[in-house]
Amino acid sequence: MAESAVVLLSGGMDSAVAAAWTRARGHPWIALTVDYGQRHSAELAAAAEIARRLGAVETVRLAVDLRAVGGSALTGALDVPKGGAGGGGIPPTYVPARNTLLLALGLGLAEARGATLLVLGANRIDYSGYPDCRPAFLEAFQALACVATKAGIEGRAPQLLAPLLHCSKAEIVRMGRSLGVPFECTLSCYDPDLDGRACGACDSCRLRARGFSEAGLPDPAAPPERGNRAN
Amino acid sequence: MAESAVVLLSGGMDSAVAAAWTRARGHPWIALTVDYGQRHSAELAAAAEIARRLGAVETVRLAVDLRAVGGSALTGALDVPKGGAGGGGIPPTYVPARNTLLLALGLGLAEARGATLLVLGANRIDYSGYPDCRPAFLEAFQALACVATKAGIEGRAPQLLAPLLHCSKAEIVRMGRSLGVPFECTLSCYDPDLDGRACGACDSCRLRARGFSEAGLPDPAAPPERGNRAN
Repeated sequence: MAESAVVLLSGGMDSAVAAAWTRARGHPWIALTVDYGQRHSAELAAAAEIARRLGAVETVRLAVDLRAVGGSALTGALDVPKGGAGGGGIPPTYVPARNTLLLALGLGLAEARGATLLVLGANRIDYSGYPDCRPAFLEAFQALACVATKAGIEGRAPQLLAPLLHCSKAEIVRMGRSLGVPFECTLSCYDPDLDGRACGACDSCRLRARGFSEAGLPDPAAPPERGNRAN
Repeated sequence: MAESAVVLLSGGMDSAVAAAWTRARGHPWIALTVDYGQRHSAELAAAAEIARRLGAVETVRLAVDLRAVGGSALTGALDVPKGGAGGGGIPPTYVPARNTLLLALGLGLAEARGATLLVLGANRIDYSGYPDCRPAFLEAFQALACVATKAGIEGRAPQLLAPLLHCSKAEIVRMGRSLGVPFECTLSCYDPDLDGRACGACDSCRLRARGFSEAGLPDPAAPPERGNRAN
């Protein structure tokens, strides 16, 4: 029987492609979606629909309200920048220790379900900005997983897989297209409106638009008038 | 100005002693208590009172319901054993990846508040049973912290401190006594009754009772008729 996987599924396009990649390799997969108090809770509905469309064997949604921690534009403490991808450095949309937390939850779920793979959609576009998307972070988390759990000390720590790690956004779009990802269900925006429509102006919307453009494909979830929405 | 600390405060005696140790060294300290769906939610009220009595500068309570993950007696999926500390191995009160999760939350809070210390009450009684209390786990988490956050990659990762790591329960009791820990507010029981009274029969109650006994001190929170309560 194929090894089963826990996939961190946010509702954005990267994790949807990572889920489709997992499915294509024949692994039964469990969707783990975390409501951490992000502004863009429309992502959570998107994640549920993607899990359904890509045949997750189970969907687990966990809530942990990081608004009490603060320190991030994504949990409401700072403004989401709309002026175009900035000049390097860590953006205000960084959430302190977010991926450590998400992977910790995934690690516990993998152990409880006997899953031997833990998959996330981190990629090099992310790790140009976010410390917890970089290869060094993933390697350190893998080392931690080997000593952190009962499964780990028994030699059954889940293998951490980031299949998009070295992909550009255009490569992710093309991979998703070939794997049948329902891009129309994905939401990448950091600051969607109340109806869950992308703003077209935040860094995430801009990177996504450039990815589809470079891949030569239309984005079925593109906002109708990109960049014209008032902040 | 003294470095500030985030202390993982559960409501049990070990983390209370770790908090008192932090205070005694002159560090302003922030109490972080996590409601993870444990049976013994009376611990949460105990933690709040300990934070107040030991002068926490801030108390942060975060909720993440691990009952959806399951796999532990502490979150209701298994029974809490009452027959005396078992013959080795990992007990059913183990919660998959719990300390990885608690430390991930502590890491994020430390970064958001600029705290440079992250303190927990793990000790050698715990790590005889729980993988995520052992020195190898703590070392791996410290390595992760150095690459996981903005503070980490800027060389300001919090230092992980487990001041009780090599202490016996009796040594923890004596240290707590000398540091003015309000033991009467602490609750160590895995399965207290609805009024928050300890059962006197679970592993945690037995270890606590032996610790006070070996230290030659009365436990101000001891159950009146230890071991006589029906399960």
